[in-house]
Amino acid sequence: MRRIMLIVAYDGTNYCGWQVQPNGITIEGVLNRELSRILKEEIKVIGASRTDAGVHALGNTAVFDTSARIPADKVALALNQGLPDDIRIQHSMEVAPDFHPRHCESRKVYEYHVYNHSFDNPIGRQYHYFVHRPLEISAMQEAAAYFVGTHDFKSFCNIHTCVETTTRTIYECRVEKEQYKITIHIEGNGFLYNMVRIIAGTLIEVGNGLRKPAEIIDILAERNREAAGKTAPARGLQLVEIQYQSEWFQPQNGRKNTKNG
Amino acid sequence: MRRIMLIVAYDGTNYCGWQVQPNGITIEGVLNRELSRILKEEIKVIGASRTDAGVHALGNTAVFDTSARIPADKVALALNQGLPDDIRIQHSMEVAPDFHPRHCESRKVYEYHVYNHSFDNPIGRQYHYFVHRPLEISAMQEAAAYFVGTHDFKSFCNIHTCVETTTRTIYECRVEKEQYKITIHIEGNGFLYNMVRIIAGTLIEVGNGLRKPAEIIDILAERNREAAGKTAPARGLQLVEIQYQSEWFQPQNGRKNTKNG
Repeated sequence: MRRIMLIVAYDGTNYCGWQVQPNGITIEGVLNRELSRILKEEIKVIGASRTDAGVHALGNTAVFDTSARIPADKVALALNQGLPDDIRIQHSMEVAPDFHPRHCESRKVYEYHVYNHSFDNPIGRQYHYFVHRPLEISAMQEAAAYFVGTHDFKSFCNIHTCVETTTRTIYECRVEKEQYKITIHIEGNGFLYNMVRIIAGTLIEVGNGLRKPAEIIDILAERNREAAGKTAPARGLQLVEIQYQSEWFQPQNGRKNTKNG
Repeated sequence: MRRIMLIVAYDGTNYCGWQVQPNGITIEGVLNRELSRILKEEIKVIGASRTDAGVHALGNTAVFDTSARIPADKVALALNQGLPDDIRIQHSMEVAPDFHPRHCESRKVYEYHVYNHSFDNPIGRQYHYFVHRPLEISAMQEAAAYFVGTHDFKSFCNIHTCVETTTRTIYECRVEKEQYKITIHIEGNGFLYNMVRIIAGTLIEVGNGLRKPAEIIDILAERNREAAGKTAPARGLQLVEIQYQSEWFQPQNGRKNTKNG
């Protein structure tokens, strides 16, 4: 048995999210189906981020175990031949058999894209949230800085979340503007359910003048979803990348021996 | 009667191009239908660039004449309410009654987008041409420079073109790369049928090493479509902007009086 990792890019527009569900097509479901067909055994991938319906990814991470003899780096090519054109494997490689994309420590990079102009831009409308009212970027930038650090993000997570702790560490949170495109860039060790979209929605309310930047401190302190802003729409969100420690990606090294020895 | 100008942005993916045709939905057809409905009179727009099926635009220009009393700047807002989300009017204004988007002198700005990586990026795949083989940017840049100036572009136009002259002036032609995205930026006083796509296809062949940059000189001299490269796919092409002399956009000024006086 080998564990193979996939870096998966997708346009989430036409999917009911990552995770397999009884009704509707999902990224995970399509990958399971195609991998099982190619490798002629039942494959079930484990995804790092179970993105919501409509959310996009440049680099989500998934792994699966197989006894098939295909070279690990050829899996990407073989898979891409049968995948619909809104899913593309960017890379495939063998990883340590105990590497788990959700349980291993990682740094996740997300971007939220806003198009802020009097009229929407039809080109790329699937990948941004159109906001008509002019947004004050400097206020959004000031507010974004308050998210950096280790905080309890209970106010910034969907009330239906079941997790042991709502504390997460944000390494970076910045807002950039280029003509009409506003990008909220955020990196952290983990994100709660809807966390990036609620942060984006709250930052947009700051940009709209509905909230002051320093209110972020109070919202964090309240530990109450109702204190924060609206959940921004899925279409604006992209999972850019998930970074792991490189030792997981050397399956032939000491780690494997440790496990088996 | 007033002449009103529209700046039209569209995602051309689902259209059979700009120009009305018996079978298939076109941008011009949708605009005529919506304008006629809103203004309660038969409207026929005149477009500046009759883009092909699948080609996109950030700013195509169209005009129409109307006796309706709607303020010119409100036409954009009224139209956008009824238009499908892949067409958005960016601006509407009254122009001189003798302004014609095709016959008046203009500077047209196009971009051709290539995604050059081992695997395609599903995000934005509708707006770029995916090229797997690594392209040599410096060669493409060198080749691009040969297009600048006034040349006979007969080699770079569809053989079915009927025009008086195939001479055009290119003001700018440059190739830029940002990570995997290659943009061919081209500005000129006019473009023949398929001209930008044939230039893009030829530059890609230079990038692939199939042609040398200086061959562009010979291809131009041959005045033969077969001398140039393939026509690059429509999806990579965007009409960015059409610039006219500002005097056309002052309908209340001397120009109007000259015409009527």
